[in-house]
Parts: sequence; structure tokens; C-alpha cells
Amino acid sequence: MRLLEERILRDGKIGDGGVLKVDSFLNHQMDIALFCKMAEEFYKLFRNEHVNKILTIEASGIGIACITGQVFGCPVIFAKKSETINIAGDVYTARVESFTHGKTYTIMVAKALLTPADSVLIIDDFLARGAALSGLSALVRAAGAALVGAGIAIEKVFQHGGDSLRESGIRIESLARIQSMENGRIAFC
Amino acid sequence: MRLLEERILRDGKIGDGGVLKVDSFLNHQMDIALFCKMAEEFYKLFRNEHVNKILTIEASGIGIACITGQVFGCPVIFAKKSETINIAGDVYTARVESFTHGKTYTIMVAKALLTPADSVLIIDDFLARGAALSGLSALVRAAGAALVGAGIAIEKVFQHGGDSLRESGIRIESLARIQSMENGRIAFC
Repeated sequence: MRLLEERILRDGKIGDGGVLKVDSFLNHQMDIALFCKMAEEFYKLFRNEHVNKILTIEASGIGIACITGQVFGCPVIFAKKSETINIAGDVYTARVESFTHGKTYTIMVAKALLTPADSVLIIDDFLARGAALSGLSALVRAAGAALVGAGIAIEKVFQHGGDSLRESGIRIESLARIQSMENGRIAFC
Repeated sequence: MRLLEERILRDGKIGDGGVLKVDSFLNHQMDIALFCKMAEEFYKLFRNEHVNKILTIEASGIGIACITGQVFGCPVIFAKKSETINIAGDVYTARVESFTHGKTYTIMVAKALLTPADSVLIIDDFLARGAALSGLSALVRAAGAALVGAGIAIEKVFQHGGDSLRESGIRIESLARIQSMENGRIAFC
């Protein structure tokens, strides 16, 4: 998606440890007008898949997911994170390792909210090593729901998280696919 | 707002320790169609205040804030939470005590995102003892921005967080105001 790529080139910054900082429009301040364009793009890609629920993960996926939910006309669930392994209540859980934050946490969704009758689209802001997406798809699987696919804002292709997830049969559509971020220069696929 | 009150009566549950659980439509699964109605209500209330930025706090405020941002046509910032007191970087910070989770954390917003030129509307899902709203208004004050007011989905009036904040001059508009939650019964003001 050219609009998003141009925005990344204009306002994205490469931080310490190869982190792409998109704080000014994606995951701290959120440019809602841009999110609307992204949501329309996700709708074009998945409109024929009978999506009835969108699933994302707190915190930075929620904004894009909600605007996308508006376009699809369906509710949005955000998986909650906890550093505790033992979670009380009637929830599906998965363990997720965060490389950015250097810790492992549990993500969960209430069993009442995901059922075998659901066709779920996962939405998230980043796909890097694929840990969050892998955990979210495990929640969908545990619920017996159908996973329609995943809509991602920015995929860091060079971190290869998408490879094995695509091989496992998950349809992943990323709006901006970054090939490399070497020498302070961002190159798209 | 009658629609929200009716939804709370229908789908809200009173949990342990007097917690109002609205997981099925507000802060785990999010009913985006309802959020659109709430956003229109916030717009009616604050449309003449020249709002150019919406501020909320992760995670459960983000959804409502983003849909509201769409109606106002402005970007949305979510303050980030950290359990660490010492935060690196060019950020405004405030300390917030969470009674629900029994801990104190730091909230922060990048200095680059809030300036004296901004007229800020705070949006959040709950107002109980007022800790989060107090922290968010401190961030706006630290930035020298104008605080237009706060739009809250559900105010637990009997926990009195709104009292001192209103006395300090902050305009607070809550769409559902709960007077009491005794004997498993929710009563609105």
C-alpha cells in the first residue's frame, strides 16, 4: 500500500536494535484517517470471507482493528496480555515470546467470545518474528473457530516470522512489507 | 445515554469486589456499532471546543478513542503504561494508582506529540476513583496544552473520582452514570 509505505519513509525512524519507530502515526499517536484507508484495503482483501469477528492483541493493534471492524461491520476482540502463567476464569490462553520487550507472557481470550461458529480475521500492527500472530492463531484454533487470515500493517519480511505461518496455511496480507533496514535505509519488497 | 445504559443492564455483570464486568461489549470484545453511537454523543457534547487531539490510555480506552477520533477528524494518542518509574526518552510522565489491579504505574506520552498548540479531549472507558483521568490531565498540563474536557463511557459515581476533578475545573461528560451497584442491582443517576 503506497500511502503507508510513503508514510513510513517520511515519518518512520530506525531506533536502537533495529526497531522501526512509527510512534507518530501508528502505535503511540494514531493517524485515524490513515487507519481508515488501511481498513478499506483490508476490506478489499477479505470482503468475501464472511468475517464476523476481528481479533487483535493489546495495545497497539486495537486502534487499527477497531477502524477495520467498523468497515466490516463486526465486533472486535482484543486478546489480553498477562505476565502470569496461571490465569483464572474461562479463557483460552497461549504463550507469546516478545523479542522487543525480552519477556514471555500469556495472551488470553474469554471462551464465551470465540466459538466454532466464528470466522475470524486477525489484525495487528506489526509482523516480525510472528510470535503474536502465532499466539493469536492458537487462540482461534483452540476455540474451534475458522481463521480467515491475518491483516498486518507492517511486515518486517527480513525477520521471517511470516514464512512458517504462511507455510502452515494461514493467509497473511501485509500492507507494507519491509525487505531490509540497513544503514538507516528502509527498503520495501 | 439510554442505549449504553440499556446495554449495561442487559450484558453487564457485577463481579467480585464490586467490579462491573462489561467484557462482552466494551473492554474485551468491543461492539463497534455501539462505539459509533457513543462517539457521536461525544461529538455533540464537544463539537464547539476545537478539539484537535484525543488522548486516552492503553488498553481499553483505545477503541472508543479511535472511533471518536474518526468522528472528530483528529489523531488519537494513547498514553503508555509502565511499571518502571524511570522512563528513558523525551516523555511527559505521571504516576497512576490502579485500584482494580492493586499497583501503581507510570503513564507517559512523547513530548513531540503534545504541545501548547493542542486542544485535547480525553476519552476513557471508565471513571471510578479518577486515578487514570487525573494522570492523563497531568500529562496535558505538563505539555502546556489546553484540556477541553473528558468524555467517559461509564462513570461509577458512587466512587466519587469525578467530584474533585470537576471541582478542579475539568469538564467531564459521562455517557452512563452509575449511582449504585448494591445487591447485584445496577442503578443509574
